[in-house]
Parts: sequence; C-alpha cells; structure tokens
Amino acid sequence: MISFARGAPAPECIPVAELADCAGAAIERDGVAALSYGPVGGYGPLREWLAERHGVEAGRVLVTNGGLQGLAFVAEALLARGGRRVLVEGPTYDRTLTILARLGAEVQTVPMDEEGLEVDALEAALGAGPPPAFLYTIPTFQNPSGRTLGAERRGRLAALARERGLTVVEDDPYGVVRFEGEPLPTLHELADGEGVVYASSFSKTVAPGLRVGYFVLTPDLVAPAEAVAVSAYITPVLLGQATVWELIRRGGFEPNLERVRDLLRSRRDAMLAALERASPDGSSWSRPEGGYFLWVELGVDSSELLDRAIAAGVAFVRGSDFFPGGRGGRTAARLAYSYPSPAEIGEGVARLADLIGRGRGRP
Amino acid sequence: MISFARGAPAPECIPVAELADCAGAAIERDGVAALSYGPVGGYGPLREWLAERHGVEAGRVLVTNGGLQGLAFVAEALLARGGRRVLVEGPTYDRTLTILARLGAEVQTVPMDEEGLEVDALEAALGAGPPPAFLYTIPTFQNPSGRTLGAERRGRLAALARERGLTVVEDDPYGVVRFEGEPLPTLHELADGEGVVYASSFSKTVAPGLRVGYFVLTPDLVAPAEAVAVSAYITPVLLGQATVWELIRRGGFEPNLERVRDLLRSRRDAMLAALERASPDGSSWSRPEGGYFLWVELGVDSSELLDRAIAAGVAFVRGSDFFPGGRGGRTAARLAYSYPSPAEIGEGVARLADLIGRGRGRP
Repeated sequence: MISFARGAPAPECIPVAELADCAGAAIERDGVAALSYGPVGGYGPLREWLAERHGVEAGRVLVTNGGLQGLAFVAEALLARGGRRVLVEGPTYDRTLTILARLGAEVQTVPMDEEGLEVDALEAALGAGPPPAFLYTIPTFQNPSGRTLGAERRGRLAALARERGLTVVEDDPYGVVRFEGEPLPTLHELADGEGVVYASSFSKTVAPGLRVGYFVLTPDLVAPAEAVAVSAYITPVLLGQATVWELIRRGGFEPNLERVRDLLRSRRDAMLAALERASPDGSSWSRPEGGYFLWVELGVDSSELLDRAIAAGVAFVRGSDFFPGGRGGRTAARLAYSYPSPAEIGEGVARLADLIGRGRGRP
Repeated sequence: MISFARGAPAPECIPVAELADCAGAAIERDGVAALSYGPVGGYGPLREWLAERHGVEAGRVLVTNGGLQGLAFVAEALLARGGRRVLVEGPTYDRTLTILARLGAEVQTVPMDEEGLEVDALEAALGAGPPPAFLYTIPTFQNPSGRTLGAERRGRLAALARERGLTVVEDDPYGVVRFEGEPLPTLHELADGEGVVYASSFSKTVAPGLRVGYFVLTPDLVAPAEAVAVSAYITPVLLGQATVWELIRRGGFEPNLERVRDLLRSRRDAMLAALERASPDGSSWSRPEGGYFLWVELGVDSSELLDRAIAAGVAFVRGSDFFPGGRGGRTAARLAYSYPSPAEIGEGVARLADLIGRGRGRP
C-alpha cells in the first residue's frame, strides 16, 4: 500500500542514532528529574527554551504528550469559560473535530481559499451568532489543505481578533518545515501574545513517537489548562521532553530540521511533478511551500474513488473527513507526501490519476 | 518539608544509570518503531510480555501514558455502555474520584475494614439501586489505606461479580511491591479474566516519570477503550515503553523490584516504629505488608491538623480527600512512607504526634 493517508514523517526523517544518544545522555545528566513525577507543565529546561523562543515567561509554556492531547486540554479549559460555539477553517484537521465533538462544542466552519481563512467570512460569522469560545486555525501549511494564510490576512485577522475579543488557538506544527519563500509572522507574534494560544510540536521536526507538543498559553489559561492536564495524567512523559531538550542543547535541532526539510521538499516536488504529469481532467491542487500535505480537488466523488484506490494499493483521506459532519469536501482529497518515497509518490499519483480517468468512463 | 503526601518512590528507588542505558539501547535496537506513531495499544514487545504474564492475547493489553490516563479511558468506555453509577471503596484513590466526577459518574462508596472492601456491604449496595457501570477497587495495599482484601473475601467478591454481571476494575499498581506474607491471587486471576479489567503500572516499580501504565481489558472493551485513547493522543509515548521493555528483556526488572521492596520496607518499618513510639492518644493505623501508604485514624480533625503540620514542616493528605465530596475520613490521614528517608520519617511522625497532643491541649 502506498499511503498518502499518513500525516507522519518518513522513517528516514527521524534521527534515530542521535536520539538514542540523547535519551541516554538526558537520563545520565538529569535522571531523577526526567524519571520522576514532575511539574505538570513539563520538563523545566525545555520549557525555558521554548519560553525564550516565544518571548514569554516559562510558566506560560505547557509541554504535553503530543500536540493533540494538549489541544484537548486547552479546548476544554476554553469551553469551560462559557459558550459552546467554536469556529474552525473548512476544511480543518479531522482529529480536532473529533476532540471538539467529544467536548460538546458547536462547530462552525469559516471558508478558506488559496490564501487561507477568508477573514471577511470570519467577520461575518462573528456578527452572526453568540461570541465563540475560540477560533481554531492552522495558518501555515494547513492540515489538510497545505494552504498558508497570507501576510495581509494575518494582520487583518490579528486586528479583528483583538477588536472583537476573540480568542485564537493557532496550531502551528508545520510552520518551521518551510522549503522555500519567506517565513511569515505567526498570529501569536502579531498579537504580541495577547489573546492567542500558540501550539506547536516536535512530532513533525524530530520524532512523533516522542510525543512532545507544546502550548504557549495566555496568562488566564495557565491555571485552568494545567488543572485539566493534572487530572488527565499527573505529569507528562518527561523522558521524551528531556531527550528533545538534549538534542537542542547540543545544537542538533536546527541541522536535523534542515535535513527534514530537504527530505520533505523532495517528496513535495515528486508529488507536484506527478500531478502535473497526470493532470486528471477537472482536477486542481494546492502548491504548498512547506509542510506535509496538499489538497486535491478531484472532480469526482472521493469516497467512491477511495474504495477503488485502496483496492489498487493507494490510500488517502477523503476531503469530507475534514468538515464537521462530513458537510463539505465531497470531491476533494488530502494527499500527504511526507511518508512514502519519491518513487512511491510518482507511482501512487499515477495510479490515482488512472482511477479518476476510468471513473469518468475513459479507457 | 517532610512529605508524607507524595505517593511517589524515593529518588533512590529509580535505577537511573540502568535506565539511561536501556533508553539508548532501546532506540538503537528498535528506534523507528519507538520514535514513530505506532499502535494505540502500545509498544508491541512490551504488550506481548504483559499478555503472557496475564494469560491473555496481546490485543487485550492497552499500555498507556501512566495508569491514571488509562483509567480515564476505561471509565469513559464503561460509562458509555450505559449507567452512571459507579461503586468505589470508601476511602479510595482521590485522583480516581476526580476522573469519575469529570465523567459525570454518580459515585457511591462501599465501606472497608481492615480486611478491605466489605463484600456484604457491596452485595447490599448492588441490591439497592440500578446496576452500576462498574466497581472500582484497589484490593492490594490500597491507596490510601494500605489495606489488602483478604483471601476469602477475594473469592466471594469474584463470585458475586460473576453472579451479578458486575464489571470490576481492579487497580493494582502496588501488588508486586510486597515486603512480606504470601501473595494473594488477583481478582482478575480468580475470575479467569472474565468481567475484570486489570490495571497496573511501572510507576511504582521502575520510574513514575516514564509514565507507563497498562490495562488488561475484557474483549468487549478493547475497541471502545482504544477509540478513546486514539482520540486522546493518537499514540502513547513509545520511548518510555520501549525503555521498560529493554529493562525487562535484559533481566533487570526483578532485581530492581527486589531493591525497591527493600528500600520501601525499611521506610514502612521506620514509620510503624515511629508511630509505636509516639502512639498519640486515640490514634490507630493500618500495618500494610507492602505498598506505599498507611492510614491513620488520628482521633482529631485532620484538616485542622494539616494546617499546623505544614507550618511545622510536615505534609500529609487528609482522609476526607479520599471520599466523594469529602463525606468521610474527617479524622483520618494518609501517610505515604515511600518518599522520605527513614530518618525523616521518624522526625516527621514525632512532629505530627506532638501536634496531635497539643491539639488536645496537652503541653
């Protein structure tokens, strides 16, 4: 099976030998702290490094067992402040939709185009209902669409949020996995950290199995988010956090990130080239400057295509999985180029294009 | 501060140097698996070892980021089958009470005596209300009381549960930390695994910071519990699990456990000796054959005592924290002997006894 479904890094992205050394060294250097119950906010030295990187006090950094779990904590804490309405991009990350549904949120999508979230539509949505508990957005190399919110829209969104008192949860696990183009300021930066909860992770840059995600909280959220985290797991897994910190401490994070970018850039290039070659009639796709995914408008029903694709040894995720209740994306697909090799990517895209052609009755 | 509040192993219990070596070796041997997204049920080799140890298929073992988080998953899955009523021992583990409250359970306590849960009272409770979703019990070296369910009662409880179709969640993180006396069969063993969810952990035997707990599920619970776990964290932290497995694989688990038992036995002995020496009027205490805790009936209000104890540099947890809504245990305390040194234990108990005496107006 050639999987375009897995939003996971290829095995060669993971610096296995280096992490083996880092894990051992982290325990030798600071074993009792890394192996005992500790602060619910995470491993001290890593929190401090993250705090400095994001210009906040260390107490505002919450390091969690992967970004998803932290998102559940933050969403729960935000929803507990009142209001069940949550705004998300349409499409958005499917696992976030699951979390929000479990928390009883009323999820409303705001449309996107190639420039990301449509800020006009957001403004209209804000005026058309009770104040939302928060907006959840992935502005850079979005999961699932690969799209990036443009610079001008970032400024407008930050200003609008401040004006309306809208809390923004900015999920940014892919932002530093940029292959080309200039980095854009985060919403958190544009807002000087006010009213924006910033989330990121080492899953896409070091190793997902370490499960190290982190949140830069607004000051008012620190106590409630930590309370949810304590009741969920007492202490996060400090060993993974200490291992990441050891990699950073010895200067290994940036060189590894450069290596990961190169590996993923070649995969994105392979997928774009294969799509150009095949160019199924009526299809179009995003051209991300980084990240793990691109979004294809197939021009055919993606559920029906998926069944045939799996029979032909290719997997992807249907567009409708990224809309609440499946209300959207019926003819779209998320293709992750992060996991297969460039050769597999070429082969997989060719098979998909062939199936799309057949679906239209072509030979 | 001399802390009798922390249910954590003393730092010297943690085999730091050995785990440093195990973490590095685990990654070198099986790095891609340990560092990638993987099965939600946990790290394969560890699951298989646990499955063999407990006489089940590996698919029934769910290894989680610590026992507490897994308990939240299992409780959620059990409550989703219908019924909000949950029976627990009075007293019981306070963090379990928090989880159950968050899940909206209606928690009812069943009384205990020195022989553990009163099975007659359980039978009466079963007859006096709707069928409970489950019974949560810690039969061996209970947290908080240190009490152990006697052999005869174990048999009766297992038989009663089978007869009434009562699901039992048997939480057993302390069972193997036995200092003396013969091990008793677990409820899971007595029930041949039917209707009993067995839970344990490596937090009390290897290192809490690794956050490796595990559950032996009943077959019908596998899919729903895994679904809750996937939506919470995709994959647990496999590095900690692979590190524990490496310790087991090289034969280090049992020798370390023997060492932990010795360290804790000397602490329990120090606490019992100090209590005997001080013997505050009107007080009595449990005499556990293993585990981390003992339970003291103080004969005075423990909230009031705690304020004065903290001022005098001694911490413990009030008995009322281990009853739903604080309805019970007003004059009791949980003393954990696991963390301080034997000398600190002697000093801390002496200070407490002195405060109890003063509280009664003695000089």
